[in-house]
Amino acid sequence: MDVLEDEEYTGHVEPTAEEPDKKVMIISCSGDLERMWATLIIATTAAAMGMQTSIFFTFWGFFPLVKNDVRITGENWMQKTLSFLNRPGTEHLKLSKMNFAGAGPAMMRKIARDHKVALPTELLETARDMGVRLLPCQMSMDLLGLKREDLIDGVEDPVGATSMLLEAQGATTLFI
Amino acid sequence: MDVLEDEEYTGHVEPTAEEPDKKVMIISCSGDLERMWATLIIATTAAAMGMQTSIFFTFWGFFPLVKNDVRITGENWMQKTLSFLNRPGTEHLKLSKMNFAGAGPAMMRKIARDHKVALPTELLETARDMGVRLLPCQMSMDLLGLKREDLIDGVEDPVGATSMLLEAQGATTLFI
Amino acid sequence: MDVLEDEEYTGHVEPTAEEPDKKVMIISCSGDLERMWATLIIATTAAAMGMQTSIFFTFWGFFPLVKNDVRITGENWMQKTLSFLNRPGTEHLKLSKMNFAGAGPAMMRKIARDHKVALPTELLETARDMGVRLLPCQMSMDLLGLKREDLIDGVEDPVGATSMLLEAQGATTLFI
Repeated sequence: MDVLEDEEYTGHVEPTAEEPDKKVMIISCSGDLERMWATLIIATTAAAMGMQTSIFFTFWGFFPLVKNDVRITGENWMQKTLSFLNRPGTEHLKLSKMNFAGAGPAMMRKIARDHKVALPTELLETARDMGVRLLPCQMSMDLLGLKREDLIDGVEDPVGATSMLLEAQGATTLFI
Repeated sequence: MDVLEDEEYTGHVEPTAEEPDKKVMIISCSGDLERMWATLIIATTAAAMGMQTSIFFTFWGFFPLVKNDVRITGENWMQKTLSFLNRPGTEHLKLSKMNFAGAGPAMMRKIARDHKVALPTELLETARDMGVRLLPCQMSMDLLGLKREDLIDGVEDPVGATSMLLEAQGATTLFI
Repeated sequence: MDVLEDEEYTGHVEPTAEEPDKKVMIISCSGDLERMWATLIIATTAAAMGMQTSIFFTFWGFFPLVKNDVRITGENWMQKTLSFLNRPGTEHLKLSKMNFAGAGPAMMRKIARDHKVALPTELLETARDMGVRLLPCQMSMDLLGLKREDLIDGVEDPVGATSMLLEAQGATTLFI
């Protein structure tokens, strides 16, 4: 993956006991395409460097954990409307700026492909395969009326803010 | 409060001298409803875990510190216009996406109530009562023409970026 | 600079070996005026406190590194369109809310001037002069088709996520 290439990085970095930040914990709160991209590039890079890496998915940032073929979710009309308007799944992410009914993201994806930068769907699978822990926020699941079977494979059991804060101990923590 | 419940958390966690991140410091820069919610849920959870917790309120994130009944603030027409357009107070927060003239937040609040998740106004009071330090940004107050009496009770003296950075020393720091 | 003034800060703070967070590393991902402002105020304040400070500019946050007189950039029509729509340079930053075709930022800039708060362009130069390391994201440059000569003076060589994560080691890290 080109995104992991770096002129200053020449191999697997073995974290030692002396290093304070051998962990990276990302709170993914925004469902914007570029922020999900940043989340996954940082997470896969950290994992490649041998860091213990986890992502806590919450609020709009929760949607990429939902299977791309799940459309209507939720138990009642409000939850259904919310998730219908903000279609979940990594293939439906929107840019926070210049979305133009999907033309902006399409352009970004095309440019990314031309420059051989990995796409979000691919990166999410890569992250999971590299051992990045994918932690769904329990409250977000409840609010959106989502069930475990609506989520992609390889996701851990849903957790709350307490577990997230414990995971953040001694980690480089980013709220994205 | 349901939001504090967590399957892996079974009591008050006493931070020891060895633990590096016994502090949580959040910079609240966005006035979006979901981000204020995230800020307050994380802060109250950290406080419940016995962590030293503080929130630095700045830019749009400053508005929730303003009393809900304060409408027109500022010394001149520009400040008045800015604060009129972005009505301050926790009851007037808007979602960053799908706001629909207030219908989105109303739906989110209704879903939250149904699932017994605490609302921002309630959480801000809870945070204050739990000892979370509420630090107003001096520059934001100046820019918005706000005075101490416009702010809710229990807020500390306004501080600058230096105090905020000192507060961030050794803390899990989140820019939300 | 007024923004650096702080009632609790009375001089240069010399970081000692015992202090855990003698470094500040900011990932600037949003091109919004207020977030760039926050980035630069925090960075210049940290530098004034004697902290080792760096900013990693990526995605929309990359644009402020582009010279104010560079308008059309990129090698193909897609990149040209993207950068035309989101005109780069610190003088063209927009607020995330209430932009009103430039009236919002103009008001904010006017209020800032009246209150003697330094503006982004000025703060970016100040940051560079104070020794804040300005690190351009290599991938963002590739995606936007930008060249070194399109960037302002004093910017370091472009780096990837690995270098950024190494820079984040032991630092107060903020994703803005």
